[in-house]
Amino acid sequence: MQEYAFRVHKIPVGVLGASGYAGRELCAIVNSHPGLELAFASAGSQAGQTARLGDRDVTFVASDDAPLDRAELVFSALPHGASALWVARAHSAGARVVDLSTDLRPGNDVSPAALGGRVPYGLPEALRAGLDGASVVANPGCYPTAILLALQPLAVSGRVLAGATINIAAASGVTGAGYSAKPELLFGEVTENYRPYGVGNEHRHLNEMRAMMDDWKVDADLIFTPHLLPVARGILATITVPLAEPLAEGVDPAGLWREFYAGEPFVEITDALPELRDVVRRNVVRIAVRRAAHLRTPTLIVIAAIDNLVKGAAGQAVQNANILLGLPEPTGLAL
Amino acid sequence: MQEYAFRVHKIPVGVLGASGYAGRELCAIVNSHPGLELAFASAGSQAGQTARLGDRDVTFVASDDAPLDRAELVFSALPHGASALWVARAHSAGARVVDLSTDLRPGNDVSPAALGGRVPYGLPEALRAGLDGASVVANPGCYPTAILLALQPLAVSGRVLAGATINIAAASGVTGAGYSAKPELLFGEVTENYRPYGVGNEHRHLNEMRAMMDDWKVDADLIFTPHLLPVARGILATITVPLAEPLAEGVDPAGLWREFYAGEPFVEITDALPELRDVVRRNVVRIAVRRAAHLRTPTLIVIAAIDNLVKGAAGQAVQNANILLGLPEPTGLAL
Amino acid sequence: MQEYAFRVHKIPVGVLGASGYAGRELCAIVNSHPGLELAFASAGSQAGQTARLGDRDVTFVASDDAPLDRAELVFSALPHGASALWVARAHSAGARVVDLSTDLRPGNDVSPAALGGRVPYGLPEALRAGLDGASVVANPGCYPTAILLALQPLAVSGRVLAGATINIAAASGVTGAGYSAKPELLFGEVTENYRPYGVGNEHRHLNEMRAMMDDWKVDADLIFTPHLLPVARGILATITVPLAEPLAEGVDPAGLWREFYAGEPFVEITDALPELRDVVRRNVVRIAVRRAAHLRTPTLIVIAAIDNLVKGAAGQAVQNANILLGLPEPTGLAL
Amino acid sequence: MQEYAFRVHKIPVGVLGASGYAGRELCAIVNSHPGLELAFASAGSQAGQTARLGDRDVTFVASDDAPLDRAELVFSALPHGASALWVARAHSAGARVVDLSTDLRPGNDVSPAALGGRVPYGLPEALRAGLDGASVVANPGCYPTAILLALQPLAVSGRVLAGATINIAAASGVTGAGYSAKPELLFGEVTENYRPYGVGNEHRHLNEMRAMMDDWKVDADLIFTPHLLPVARGILATITVPLAEPLAEGVDPAGLWREFYAGEPFVEITDALPELRDVVRRNVVRIAVRRAAHLRTPTLIVIAAIDNLVKGAAGQAVQNANILLGLPEPTGLAL
Repeated sequence: MQEYAFRVHKIPVGVLGASGYAGRELCAIVNSHPGLELAFASAGSQAGQTARLGDRDVTFVASDDAPLDRAELVFSALPHGASALWVARAHSAGARVVDLSTDLRPGNDVSPAALGGRVPYGLPEALRAGLDGASVVANPGCYPTAILLALQPLAVSGRVLAGATINIAAASGVTGAGYSAKPELLFGEVTENYRPYGVGNEHRHLNEMRAMMDDWKVDADLIFTPHLLPVARGILATITVPLAEPLAEGVDPAGLWREFYAGEPFVEITDALPELRDVVRRNVVRIAVRRAAHLRTPTLIVIAAIDNLVKGAAGQAVQNANILLGLPEPTGLAL
Repeated sequence: MQEYAFRVHKIPVGVLGASGYAGRELCAIVNSHPGLELAFASAGSQAGQTARLGDRDVTFVASDDAPLDRAELVFSALPHGASALWVARAHSAGARVVDLSTDLRPGNDVSPAALGGRVPYGLPEALRAGLDGASVVANPGCYPTAILLALQPLAVSGRVLAGATINIAAASGVTGAGYSAKPELLFGEVTENYRPYGVGNEHRHLNEMRAMMDDWKVDADLIFTPHLLPVARGILATITVPLAEPLAEGVDPAGLWREFYAGEPFVEITDALPELRDVVRRNVVRIAVRRAAHLRTPTLIVIAAIDNLVKGAAGQAVQNANILLGLPEPTGLAL
Repeated sequence: MQEYAFRVHKIPVGVLGASGYAGRELCAIVNSHPGLELAFASAGSQAGQTARLGDRDVTFVASDDAPLDRAELVFSALPHGASALWVARAHSAGARVVDLSTDLRPGNDVSPAALGGRVPYGLPEALRAGLDGASVVANPGCYPTAILLALQPLAVSGRVLAGATINIAAASGVTGAGYSAKPELLFGEVTENYRPYGVGNEHRHLNEMRAMMDDWKVDADLIFTPHLLPVARGILATITVPLAEPLAEGVDPAGLWREFYAGEPFVEITDALPELRDVVRRNVVRIAVRRAAHLRTPTLIVIAAIDNLVKGAAGQAVQNANILLGLPEPTGLAL
Repeated sequence: MQEYAFRVHKIPVGVLGASGYAGRELCAIVNSHPGLELAFASAGSQAGQTARLGDRDVTFVASDDAPLDRAELVFSALPHGASALWVARAHSAGARVVDLSTDLRPGNDVSPAALGGRVPYGLPEALRAGLDGASVVANPGCYPTAILLALQPLAVSGRVLAGATINIAAASGVTGAGYSAKPELLFGEVTENYRPYGVGNEHRHLNEMRAMMDDWKVDADLIFTPHLLPVARGILATITVPLAEPLAEGVDPAGLWREFYAGEPFVEITDALPELRDVVRRNVVRIAVRRAAHLRTPTLIVIAAIDNLVKGAAGQAVQNANILLGLPEPTGLAL
């Protein structure tokens, strides 16, 4: 019945690249969102197919047939490199746009003049002010969402040891690799297996993380090692941060985070260590903090967990859309 | 037919704590070992039960009924704290003993006078010489086996940056937690989940790792964060090591490991990144090494993978037993 | 905001045996139900513990401390045999009761005089009329829910071949076995495994299925073989039914089901074959029907899938509660 | 050392279609087989790639480059339809051939004149005699191997009720679907899922099962429903067989099977119900038998489990090869 109340002024939404995991999640959230309704969902090879997403059937149209002019808001879940062009098209057609690709994120080169250069980075819990009145937003990557929200309170308070290396070991479920039929993503190859990838700071998400560290004036290096988990959804990052000053005895190491994120609906600071099960299918990041014993360099260990498809992609994209559209930020995100 | 050749002089073996995962694996390996035969397998609550282990049925006897005098070699897979006493009993009864518990490992306190103090640490690829003629051996923990073999070439060659912190993020399958019916180990709690534990340098395996680092004269701290994987078997450790000197351009970062472990039958240095699937059910450690780009502190990332129940427990215990008994080290371990 | 509208007259609910999988699911659904609020949740060994269920923390009280008089509605998720007594107590205390155990289901013997004998069987899509004004309802078992809803259209229309055997092969996720720390339910024992149980018509759910077949005047035998799946949730039943008369050529075999269940919000008749993924975390049964080729006896194959914890337990229990309380049947079940 | 004894006269073997799951398993078994050595392994899209199979690296050659004349024995693991032609080529080149495709199995049409018509069906425990001196053998399908070995003792002893329907519900791990990157086989689609396929007697394996039932003079219909399991390996079949005569009271229902298969190294008749874990990576079928209670038609339930890649494919193919080559049947199969 909530729905009827809104139907009179539901905002038409388009999803580009709707057949991948993030695109499908976007359609599902839009379909249950009281203020949005799906105007079109485009796909490449799956064009013409119908899928049940949320509580509605969605038929994918070919990208070239996407009626950009019929959407007031467009989400692009197109592949990196291919997305920026379509973002510009949707923008020219008059739609507000949330881009889920890396193309427009800080630290990456693509930035079409058509968009007037750099667009804001859609990490609301860090940069909410910059999103007001924006017409295009770059939605953060899944790993950076978990990692930057975990680091922010230490970073902006100048507590990170100058010249130090922040060590980030993270693991992601296979949907993070996309809905692409690569042999190494077959069930028979992933079950009972676990493996690192992009070892040696090769992952594309490092750019946006370094750019934010620079904005935060943190003089530290990052070493980031992702791993592939035999689960469908979820990212858990284990982050060790050398501190400029030791934490006083008896102080709750998570106190800084509780204070910093007070009132944030999608950040949960917990005493218990986060697990994937606590965040799957929810638009939240859960964070816990521990002291590391027996170290000469005072160090904190920050654990952060998200659902890579929700807070790490589609959920955060809708959170950004709500901001762009002037809707209450949590609208449609009580999954 | 190989078996007949050996039957005339098979060595009688006892397994204490045989009903757990490591104990069952030990029985299975012994049952297919050409030079050993099972004299008894003892258990606690499962005493009287029969299980098919390897290609034979094994009926567990109660610990107090274990005929220690009938075994020339005894493996103890008893719980930490309970094991040392039984090791001493088996030793007094005249058996050689391989203890899989932490009790007798370096850095731990338990060390019964009955055993004449410190017993050698059974990591053959590091301390083979010290095992010659030993009557009791402390079998290393699963995490330390992977981590110490990964670190050894850097450690003994003095390449680790003085005063640095070596960061170790590791993940283990659930059999590492033992065959104990804890609710948090139920399938319904572990599937599609992933979680850290012992965060903040709380894991009991740190003692033996620190003790070895001291033996190796490495002036560095360890930060070790284990995680629980939704897989049955396998450990993968991701280790970042700050170096005293940068590695010369063009040098194969794994070259030092290839040279150090040349001829070791159970160490595989690989170009490809190790995965659990490559090591499961095999008595090997697989190691790959990568440079970390974009860091001010020259750093190597070492990835090591083992089967926690084989090279991390039962397989290495049989490797140690072969040494104690003067059998070729790989005997019975071509699993 | 929907919630505010109801808050003025939320109905206080008690959950007995709240710490098991079905009990936890009940608490989670009640916590998000606009017309219900949790008055107490009792547990045995977990009394005193707190768990996050739905979007609230729930602290379990000891069963003997359960304030039965404070609840207008009580769900009993207590073990079979232990439940009937508590149902009677809650009933005497003036509450309406939905019992999730087998105790009060047709074909089972327990039926306390205190309840005035046989209580209605809470399978709304079959017996809705009998639930009006009832004060106690026996919630069906998980397997019977899927199987009886799959068979009903054939059964009540007299299409089953007299004297025939209806063959039912079903598989369930491990939460169906309850939140009990049995070794055979450990992740290490269930992953990459699959096994039958209760083979030979030994499963306790056969009683209620046979009782319903008798009510429907079906002269056929049932052979039911359940299996344990390496998944957390979900039941899929594959049912072969010999027919009295062959189905006419060209007739949609599912037509009878579509007609029979027209308008039922929780029954989905599909062309595609049901999968667990389509029903997990939803209060629905999905059913598809196929002709079997190359058989002398005309036969239909009916496939039915549910979430064992939702439509197979807690969701259906809330559906029954809504009926008892005069609320719209789907209230709080759009999960 | 056993190996040296054989090296002097190892038989050169070629594997066609070696890059799929069955082909890889074949290479692994051949690589550890004391009497065989790999002469070539051919692949399609993966030609030129190298994989570690068993304890050796294998580089796949393009099919057209396969040196058929260098192999005394050829295994074809090529796709159905494509295999028969290559079998004929290998046969013309003078090699003995074991074909793992359906092409040459009874009940299927393909049967090149070049092979002199029908070739024997390689189910040794049923048709061993017919394999003596054969130059080409059709290796049975995975499902038929488990199902036919389960049914044989009843079938050949005339105990099946005339005109009855034998109901077969079976489930297979995903490797049964081959190493093909189809989206529906991605980990994200299979984990926590379970689904039927080929419902309504549509599965291609029915032909060979019906052909064997005819050979056995069994006047009964088969209804076969396969399901996809979220496991990598293993098939479990649950078979209900109406009997012509009831089994006498007190008789062990499995007695007939124990007698029939006495001395068979690869058939295990068990009291406990088979599980996938008991057969994975082994060349065996495990069978248990139960009476079905409460049925008017006397009925037995036979449960059979195999590893679809071993006894269901590569292992049985090597078992057949051993027969063709006059080697002891179990040679190289004590996996």
